[in-house]
Amino acid sequence: MLSINEQVRFADTDMLGVVHHANYFRWFESARVAFLKQAGVDLWDLMNNGYSFPISDARCAYKSPARYDDELVVNIAMRELSRAKMTFDYEVWRPKDAKLLAEGYTCNVFTDAAGRVTRLRDVFYRRLYDFYQAQKSEGGGR
Amino acid sequence: MLSINEQVRFADTDMLGVVHHANYFRWFESARVAFLKQAGVDLWDLMNNGYSFPISDARCAYKSPARYDDELVVNIAMRELSRAKMTFDYEVWRPKDAKLLAEGYTCNVFTDAAGRVTRLRDVFYRRLYDFYQAQKSEGGGR
Amino acid sequence: MLSINEQVRFADTDMLGVVHHANYFRWFESARVAFLKQAGVDLWDLMNNGYSFPISDARCAYKSPARYDDELVVNIAMRELSRAKMTFDYEVWRPKDAKLLAEGYTCNVFTDAAGRVTRLRDVFYRRLYDFYQAQKSEGGGR
Amino acid sequence: MLSINEQVRFADTDMLGVVHHANYFRWFESARVAFLKQAGVDLWDLMNNGYSFPISDARCAYKSPARYDDELVVNIAMRELSRAKMTFDYEVWRPKDAKLLAEGYTCNVFTDAAGRVTRLRDVFYRRLYDFYQAQKSEGGGR
Repeated sequence: MLSINEQVRFADTDMLGVVHHANYFRWFESARVAFLKQAGVDLWDLMNNGYSFPISDARCAYKSPARYDDELVVNIAMRELSRAKMTFDYEVWRPKDAKLLAEGYTCNVFTDAAGRVTRLRDVFYRRLYDFYQAQKSEGGGR
Repeated sequence: MLSINEQVRFADTDMLGVVHHANYFRWFESARVAFLKQAGVDLWDLMNNGYSFPISDARCAYKSPARYDDELVVNIAMRELSRAKMTFDYEVWRPKDAKLLAEGYTCNVFTDAAGRVTRLRDVFYRRLYDFYQAQKSEGGGR
Repeated sequence: MLSINEQVRFADTDMLGVVHHANYFRWFESARVAFLKQAGVDLWDLMNNGYSFPISDARCAYKSPARYDDELVVNIAMRELSRAKMTFDYEVWRPKDAKLLAEGYTCNVFTDAAGRVTRLRDVFYRRLYDFYQAQKSEGGGR
Repeated sequence: MLSINEQVRFADTDMLGVVHHANYFRWFESARVAFLKQAGVDLWDLMNNGYSFPISDARCAYKSPARYDDELVVNIAMRELSRAKMTFDYEVWRPKDAKLLAEGYTCNVFTDAAGRVTRLRDVFYRRLYDFYQAQKSEGGGR
């Protein structure tokens, strides 16, 4: 498991006074980017090598609303990895009151620039696989 | 089933050249607002009566990417209704090539302004229930 | 002058209960896209011909807040056109109470894919120029 | 002058491969929030005291595009302060190549909850004024 910190921006709220639900997927994305980077996989590298990595599935269960200026922790753990796709689980916590605000899930597939499903080549897959295994053995998987 | 039209804005795309996945939830919201309005329930009315209606669950399965300037149809059908919550199914179609781009689901719960789960009073519930039944008998439910 | 219609989405509001100021620039963009399209210039064409058209200047003066569900009219008029750039003026009106909500301005420059300033070739420039002149003679310019 | 750090999110880019111009105003807002907080003025406090603080003017001149994953520094300096409004200047820098990417300006006015222009009471104004003066004497003003 890996964590990033987020602070709720004013622009992320809506007129109900809470963070608009679509914005949680932006936090998930930032956590995913941080996970991949720590595994040694930079999205620029993937793109420069002709890969695209569209989201094929995204879900979020909202437990309690995040509000403006809240300091949040977003946990991310890889659930599955293959050469064709990777899936992640997420948790959004507010440390101040030790509250779990949301749980999420995403699936990315790997495609070529034309959008055809492809398989990740060794140089990228290996890094992800090793990091995934290391994370699991640390007990960071769910 | 009820439908709205959307046209993809430039600002909705990301550097992969497709609509960023979080933006589909904005379209779902617009379809939901249109559904409720057609049922005779205006969000201003709900809010002025002390109701909030946070999303407790949101999901989207992405089949094929939407691109800039695409003209889309978003179908919405109510799946479940109670005084405590309402759930909806969505489909995003691109008529030009008769392609189903995405399928979604959301759940709203009804709360008071303080965020406590509450039950929708008759005046609102009746309108939703009647519209829901009318939609189903038209074969618009899924 | 040319106009588009916009309806304020729930997601465009912030916790002050009004449309977040950054979102007006999304409306300006939609008006600009409509203007260019009516002039016979499609952004896909520009991009496929190696052009980029970054914004170099954007301004908005906010007179009165737009609120959720407001039906708005966004007027756009071209102010200047050269082969190197184009500038536009905008007005956001709420017809319901005949209120001017905002006035804006943007400047796009034309660049090649690498971001170097370039000059628009005849096929695109002519269409814009003719449309610009036609608009002005209709008294639509400001 | 005060600075905040921002890192460009994937979701902030558009299909031209750069940050969409509207998103700079989100960074300006985060810088403004940090400035006010350091001055001892929390937006929650202002709102709980019945103040609103809508943007009445916002501008940005874009010099060079920000790209995905760029680490940025956003400088903010207060330009003017009265009990009725406050204005700020911004700069967005990319330290990696010491490049100035954008310069901005915003004006907030103080209103009551109904949107009528009002004047900031002493407890808030004093903190802002003192911080403003301290910043200027540090040579941070422009």
